[in-house]
Amino acid sequence: MRSAANSGLRIGPARGVLTFGCIIVRRMKHEVLFHPSGKRGQVEERKTVLEAARGLGIGLRSDCGGKGTCGKCRIMIEQGEGGLSSPTEKERRLLGSQLASHCRLACTAAIQGPLSVMVPRESLADEAIVVAEGEGIPFELSPVVRKYHVAMTAPNAEDPTGDAQRLLNELVEVYHLKGLEIDQPVLQKLPEVLREAAWDVTVTVWDSKQVLDVEQGYVNDSYGMAVDIGTTTVVGYLMSMRTGQTLAIESMTNPQIAYGADVMTRIVYATKDDENRRRIRRSIVDGLNAIIQKACAEAGMAPSKVVEMTLVGNTAMHHLFLGLNTESLARAPFVPIMQEPCDLKARDLMLVVNQCANVHILPIEAGFVGADNVGVLIATQPQQYPGLTLVIDIGTNGEIVLGDKDAGLMCCSAAAGPAFEGAHIKCGMMAATGAIAGVRINPGTREVSYRTIGGIRPQGICGSGIIEAVAQMVKCGILSGDGRMNADARCVRSGEDGPEFVLERADKTATGRDIVITQKDIREVQLAKAAIYTGASILMKRLGVEKVDRVILAGAFGSYVDPESAMAIGLFPRCDLENVKAVGNAAGYGARMALLSKAMRMEAARIARTVKYVELTTDPDFESMFIASTRFT
Amino acid sequence: MRSAANSGLRIGPARGVLTFGCIIVRRMKHEVLFHPSGKRGQVEERKTVLEAARGLGIGLRSDCGGKGTCGKCRIMIEQGEGGLSSPTEKERRLLGSQLASHCRLACTAAIQGPLSVMVPRESLADEAIVVAEGEGIPFELSPVVRKYHVAMTAPNAEDPTGDAQRLLNELVEVYHLKGLEIDQPVLQKLPEVLREAAWDVTVTVWDSKQVLDVEQGYVNDSYGMAVDIGTTTVVGYLMSMRTGQTLAIESMTNPQIAYGADVMTRIVYATKDDENRRRIRRSIVDGLNAIIQKACAEAGMAPSKVVEMTLVGNTAMHHLFLGLNTESLARAPFVPIMQEPCDLKARDLMLVVNQCANVHILPIEAGFVGADNVGVLIATQPQQYPGLTLVIDIGTNGEIVLGDKDAGLMCCSAAAGPAFEGAHIKCGMMAATGAIAGVRINPGTREVSYRTIGGIRPQGICGSGIIEAVAQMVKCGILSGDGRMNADARCVRSGEDGPEFVLERADKTATGRDIVITQKDIREVQLAKAAIYTGASILMKRLGVEKVDRVILAGAFGSYVDPESAMAIGLFPRCDLENVKAVGNAAGYGARMALLSKAMRMEAARIARTVKYVELTTDPDFESMFIASTRFT
Repeated sequence: MRSAANSGLRIGPARGVLTFGCIIVRRMKHEVLFHPSGKRGQVEERKTVLEAARGLGIGLRSDCGGKGTCGKCRIMIEQGEGGLSSPTEKERRLLGSQLASHCRLACTAAIQGPLSVMVPRESLADEAIVVAEGEGIPFELSPVVRKYHVAMTAPNAEDPTGDAQRLLNELVEVYHLKGLEIDQPVLQKLPEVLREAAWDVTVTVWDSKQVLDVEQGYVNDSYGMAVDIGTTTVVGYLMSMRTGQTLAIESMTNPQIAYGADVMTRIVYATKDDENRRRIRRSIVDGLNAIIQKACAEAGMAPSKVVEMTLVGNTAMHHLFLGLNTESLARAPFVPIMQEPCDLKARDLMLVVNQCANVHILPIEAGFVGADNVGVLIATQPQQYPGLTLVIDIGTNGEIVLGDKDAGLMCCSAAAGPAFEGAHIKCGMMAATGAIAGVRINPGTREVSYRTIGGIRPQGICGSGIIEAVAQMVKCGILSGDGRMNADARCVRSGEDGPEFVLERADKTATGRDIVITQKDIREVQLAKAAIYTGASILMKRLGVEKVDRVILAGAFGSYVDPESAMAIGLFPRCDLENVKAVGNAAGYGARMALLSKAMRMEAARIARTVKYVELTTDPDFESMFIASTRFT
Repeated sequence: MRSAANSGLRIGPARGVLTFGCIIVRRMKHEVLFHPSGKRGQVEERKTVLEAARGLGIGLRSDCGGKGTCGKCRIMIEQGEGGLSSPTEKERRLLGSQLASHCRLACTAAIQGPLSVMVPRESLADEAIVVAEGEGIPFELSPVVRKYHVAMTAPNAEDPTGDAQRLLNELVEVYHLKGLEIDQPVLQKLPEVLREAAWDVTVTVWDSKQVLDVEQGYVNDSYGMAVDIGTTTVVGYLMSMRTGQTLAIESMTNPQIAYGADVMTRIVYATKDDENRRRIRRSIVDGLNAIIQKACAEAGMAPSKVVEMTLVGNTAMHHLFLGLNTESLARAPFVPIMQEPCDLKARDLMLVVNQCANVHILPIEAGFVGADNVGVLIATQPQQYPGLTLVIDIGTNGEIVLGDKDAGLMCCSAAAGPAFEGAHIKCGMMAATGAIAGVRINPGTREVSYRTIGGIRPQGICGSGIIEAVAQMVKCGILSGDGRMNADARCVRSGEDGPEFVLERADKTATGRDIVITQKDIREVQLAKAAIYTGASILMKRLGVEKVDRVILAGAFGSYVDPESAMAIGLFPRCDLENVKAVGNAAGYGARMALLSKAMRMEAARIARTVKYVELTTDPDFESMFIASTRFT
């Protein structure tokens, strides 16, 4: 315990004041000092330590709303233990032997004398929770939606203030939340909820601005949904905004595929007339609603508990979801209608989460470098890294970013086509269960070994499998550097589309058909990888560098790809192998970060504003570089 | 013209700068000085005077968006006429002989030398338009919704900024409107509108915060709708927010009357279950939509042109319209769910105006003193008046306010009942065409003369008619001070409900029935007027005054009432007759003021927060004062 001299505690209460012979009776006040903040104040007798702390702007946790049940507001009495009311039964139960070590609960201990209090870090409300998952960069949990527990008295003749103002007043008084408004649907249910809850409710507040929900009693948990709308796959993440945990992940094929497998076909469909635009928008909305419902069912909760969403997607998916005209995306200069981040009401978007929920749409960088790439950038943060980073996000298009802390970031979009997603490949498939994701060829026997996702019989081959197979084929001399298959090799046979390399025979596959790689497949891979390589090279040329310090491979693809093989076939310029990292679906991780952290939203907006877009096709060296990049060397 | 010495004009342009032997070519700049503001700056050659003025923060009018067609940006050249480009054909046409008096159009005249310019008051954009109508207090037109004309260039390879950001950038540059957001439905139509309009559009902006609409070309007019939801009558005013003019007035019987003629019956109906609450809400929404459509049809415009609404109504009407629970309004302490003003999207309220329009709901004062009374107060402004004002708004309830500039305001609600609206009166009717609104009785002959609204055959008698009839009957000795009808008087006959006074015989009425005032009617009037009188007296007692300086009578009733008769029967405490004023539907006028003036909205919020509510029924003198007040003396 500190000494009185150290803590500077003044002994003796401030009493009633004698003025012109009349005693003005005031409730007695006592000096209370808080460590380690050093804040002090005169506090009225009988107030709790929690109230005293709040009055001085010290944010003590009180998850249960000051009912003495959560035990989160534990404090240590440094001096003046007699200055507190006796421990209550609740304190005895929650603190047990800690009582003897001068621990108390701030919400229950009432002040009756001068006091010096130590607040442990874990009792501070703003103590950061750090979220990190898989390969993602850790970040601080600071969602834009927060919950506040309030217990009020019912209106009466002396204080007839109405429900809404009553609630707002309480939020100002207890949590200093000024200028809040209440969303209309909340107003409509407010009186019932307040009365059924005997005026003890938990309030959900968006960005310290708007009340989104009012629930009976003390509610601790808060849920959000992050969504990544890919051209081919839509993924939804149901998140706890209290703990940062992922509660459920649901994915589905983008239902817009009915209107075209690739972006351009869908744009053409949507631009035909308003009815088409509505129909294609409705299909993705229905898809998202299905994902929301499945994810919530899996977590055993009602979709109306979801009070915040974030959304990323490439520029076309972003526009089609918002019902924006995509005509300008179909021709140069490829102008998006809207690039800025925005917050829209779920009800206006026809999403089946809580009708007061906001949906935060991440910004677009430029043209075809969309909100999905912004997600990748906040998830991988090349802009925070001192060395030069090349980030390659491979989806149906390839978005490439180059930069570092000092130089800032440049981005471009490479028309890689869907080969790495398994499309336009004879036995290609998405990186899903049953896909061959890794291939080894014995250089001597040319015997093939492989691994499938899920370890089951192979159904086909996905992007990472193709890359590894090609790398191995080149290594073993089955493929030449210019991509010609060695027809004389024992393992190469003549198929209907020309030479083909057999990975597995029909009797050992799940489909009952041979799994092969054809000469045509190789040409597709050459075009795809050349597009990526050329994009990266042009960015490097613009920055005047010949080598990057690290490479990050993102995309569903990136979860399985073998960095060595990818570099071997020339997917990206050479780099020290230990500095090549595959991080999986970084766009989805970025969407989750933006859901859980307001700071990450702000960073996303900043990046989108500052990243410099480079148009590849107008670069004078583009064609020659592209042709040179088709070689497997 | 001022001399160069006076105006401090520096002669000679600032030219290209010579630095280390290289000439850095800059466009030439010239000093331009504006009077009477005294602002000056270096302006690039070839910029227009309008651009120069905007750059210096001088808000010149340019109603046509700087196209040289409206002639509103007229300026006078004080010095340096040679410093401007030659007058264009447009200037010659619009200015004619004024050109010789050194007049020019700021949007057309381009700078090519130093210049001193005088800006006439009428060319300033912020020149106030003052609105005043009938008995209303004049106020400055400053609607929360404003229109801005912008002409942009289309995106191109050098400047591929997308539609939304392009528009926002232009609004920042030309009008300094920073941080605007674009409402979702506007985003959806933005690309079509911009392209069809060749990037020349008018933008509707709400409160310098949100873009509500984008229209092709230059659009000058802007429309709003103010609505007063009365228990019995709903009135809608279609307004030009550019001129402040009322374009159409539509009224209808409140369709909620199907669920109860009086407030309490409707509250009971609505509180039964959620379905009832939805149904009664839906009926008033349908009613408002009918009014909106009729008013717009009358003015020959589409309802989607209405981009802002204001709404007043008593507390119950307010709650029922918003779908709020009214249970707490049915019993002491009569707590409204929500008292604060709020802005809601028309689409969330299911109103058929522009879906991006906001609806501003005026605040409630307390309990049953609702937003309609706030409307009355901003329309009559007792809080600005040095002498003590008594404001009486008579609808189905009577709201009474007493106060002045220094003492502030007190309010109360008097349960007057609907007698003054013609209900519970044998031949009573609303103040509509065919109602007897004024009555004279010859003291000698006891012959009755009367006037009807619209001057047609009488159908019944309205509140003001009843008041005048009663006053005349007392004066002629047909009624005693305690309200007994003199059965011996020649004009009093015995009817089915006891004695009755005949105003007109059946053969001269529109209904073919006698129009009479019965003894029972007199009792109703006594109760109604006693309620008002008692309310006013209790407020005066609380303030410690025995006399007020003026009385304002509001309400549809207030348009026709004869102040002398009203005072004679003791509707309110005595006051110098010349200071008693009837102002008609002040609540509706207040709603219009709030539509046309942001300052009035703020004043409404301030009044609602500060007016002191007095509960009449708990006053110890209430009963005795009420009984005493039933006398006609």
